[in-house]
Amino acid sequence: MIDPVALTSRLIACPSVTPADAGALDVIAEALEELGFTVHSFWEGGPPDGPVRNLFASRGEGGPHFAFAGHSDVVPAGEGWATDPFEPIVRGDLLHGRGAVDMKGAVAAFIAAAARVSNHQGTLSLIITGDEEGPASHGTVALIDWMDARGIRPDMCLVGEPTSAARLGDTIKIGRRGSVNMWIEVPGTQGHVAYPHLADNPVSRLVRILDEVKGWTLDTGNRWFQPSNLEVTDIAVGNPATNVIPAAARARLNIRFNDEQRGQDLIDRVREVVTRHAPRGTVEAKISGEAFLTEPGTLSTLVTDAIRRTTGLDAELSTSGGTSDARFLSKICPVVEFGLCNATMHKLDEAVAIPDLHALTDIYADIIAHALGGGQQG
Amino acid sequence: MIDPVALTSRLIACPSVTPADAGALDVIAEALEELGFTVHSFWEGGPPDGPVRNLFASRGEGGPHFAFAGHSDVVPAGEGWATDPFEPIVRGDLLHGRGAVDMKGAVAAFIAAAARVSNHQGTLSLIITGDEEGPASHGTVALIDWMDARGIRPDMCLVGEPTSAARLGDTIKIGRRGSVNMWIEVPGTQGHVAYPHLADNPVSRLVRILDEVKGWTLDTGNRWFQPSNLEVTDIAVGNPATNVIPAAARARLNIRFNDEQRGQDLIDRVREVVTRHAPRGTVEAKISGEAFLTEPGTLSTLVTDAIRRTTGLDAELSTSGGTSDARFLSKICPVVEFGLCNATMHKLDEAVAIPDLHALTDIYADIIAHALGGGQQG
Ligand SMILES: [Zn+2]
Ligand SMILES: [Zn+2]
Repeated sequence: MIDPVALTSRLIACPSVTPADAGALDVIAEALEELGFTVHSFWEGGPPDGPVRNLFASRGEGGPHFAFAGHSDVVPAGEGWATDPFEPIVRGDLLHGRGAVDMKGAVAAFIAAAARVSNHQGTLSLIITGDEEGPASHGTVALIDWMDARGIRPDMCLVGEPTSAARLGDTIKIGRRGSVNMWIEVPGTQGHVAYPHLADNPVSRLVRILDEVKGWTLDTGNRWFQPSNLEVTDIAVGNPATNVIPAAARARLNIRFNDEQRGQDLIDRVREVVTRHAPRGTVEAKISGEAFLTEPGTLSTLVTDAIRRTTGLDAELSTSGGTSDARFLSKICPVVEFGLCNATMHKLDEAVAIPDLHALTDIYADIIAHALGGGQQG
Repeated sequence: MIDPVALTSRLIACPSVTPADAGALDVIAEALEELGFTVHSFWEGGPPDGPVRNLFASRGEGGPHFAFAGHSDVVPAGEGWATDPFEPIVRGDLLHGRGAVDMKGAVAAFIAAAARVSNHQGTLSLIITGDEEGPASHGTVALIDWMDARGIRPDMCLVGEPTSAARLGDTIKIGRRGSVNMWIEVPGTQGHVAYPHLADNPVSRLVRILDEVKGWTLDTGNRWFQPSNLEVTDIAVGNPATNVIPAAARARLNIRFNDEQRGQDLIDRVREVVTRHAPRGTVEAKISGEAFLTEPGTLSTLVTDAIRRTTGLDAELSTSGGTSDARFLSKICPVVEFGLCNATMHKLDEAVAIPDLHALTDIYADIIAHALGGGQQG
């Protein structure tokens, strides 16, 4: 059997700040090989975002194929920790360290669960990347390509992100909103404020554009999603002279959108407004991910039933929050996300409650047993 | 007699970039003393805007008192001149050098005119500062205080700024618009774009404020003034993170306003809009000058008649353009502005047409003779 607390501690001790691996995937690979998994790992990309180490491991063969997905990288520790963020330490019933909840604890719990349910049918796999907290350009996308080239496609996937809020098991995610960033640039004609007729103030145009798009009601949300929302996140003019009408003005906005919108449609709509108010204006855009929804059904029920049996809680089916690698995996199979409590994720003194690590292992083992059959040992 | 071209050249050779004097006022003082003026000069202020050298010179006594006002400082040369900007050089009929038209040429023309009309009645004075192109905090304002303390108050004042456009004498200024700068700061509550309900985006509020004030029709202008106009000159948020709702947003605006507006009223109106859209928003403001108008009458006729006699042109009475020290002098007596052609002012290869320097001397001499009596010699 594997102790998820000891394994989480070993992973925390690897300072795997994206894109560094720092030995984290070796710890995982070694544990999985001992449990009978076939482990493949490969490096992807180059500086500055890489190289990134990725891992695919599977046990058993044929269907059904249940995959657990996650990441071994962590966000930087930041200044001000009570103890060394990469030296795991137990205080009371908390295990402290960067990555404790996001998501080395969940990776350890999944491996401990896999140790518990060894006689399952079909295929059990782990899809683990070292590039989730970074640009995510060399991570899960590369793993999906790698699997695709080998004809590997899970039937269901659980991403172990820390979705729980107040108590372990209170929330799972069955989808995520999409996200798109846009950079608007409005050129004007520089001039002196005393002669505005000889100039063309780009700020006036930009303000009209932003006021119009901020006034949109994109949709009113639906059963599973809150309304899509637009935020202007930056404006920059950079004009130090009080008597000068500036030559250009720039703004950046972000739209978090539900499954009633598509990223490209939103870009087109913003571009139309920009062009109408500023014919020489331009819009650059980057879609971080489209909205996706795994309709409640077999997979979500598998997870909520396991949560109820272990914790007694009825998990809420949520689509809120930021993006995760589930946006990539949702393209190949139904995906839900469920993991530890997220109160300390990305924060100073990140910590996981040790009872939660054991309970999460119980829930993951229950899910494996009900997804693939097989009884729990130990 | 004094040659205005030679005197302009001597002044150009002093690199008196604000607040440096570089000997410019010594050249002026020496020339005026030889013409029988009593010259006072004093230093005002300290770093970084000072010290600034100012000069008051007068000849004769009693009324009427006609004053000529101007400045000996110049704006920085900038890169890219064909020749050394502080080495006066004649090419064709142009005298090149920083300050040639703004306004060392006019100062020289006034001194040459004073040499021409030496037997006038009343008082003829020069009010010359070394701080017009800078913050103007230690210049004409200090000179007015200095005069006030000694009971000196001109009956009329001509400021020698380069008001001519296409031809010398085509335009004089009988007033100027006012100018006020405002700095708007809107605090918000920082947050993640995925959780806008937990944040308060200050950019949304700022955009609403700016769109509203930019939509104002402040007035439609009047006989002597064009409409008041507002320009947003800068916006700064400074948020590098695409997924973060920023904590604060700032903007700066400038209003050029005519004599139907008062600076403080405009500040109050902007503040009302800011407070309505952003209760925690603040407005800092600085009035560079109120609008002023010297109603067409004795003084403007004195100038336009002199221009007509010398050039044959009917000068336009204008109130357009930026601010000048006339805004301070207008508080103590009627003021008009008239000087050289402004096409090259503040630009590379600033230059004055030599025939214009002589014609301007003729016009100034005519004005002195008609304002104070006395015949022209030489
Ligand atoms: Zn994570
Ligand atoms: Zn000037």
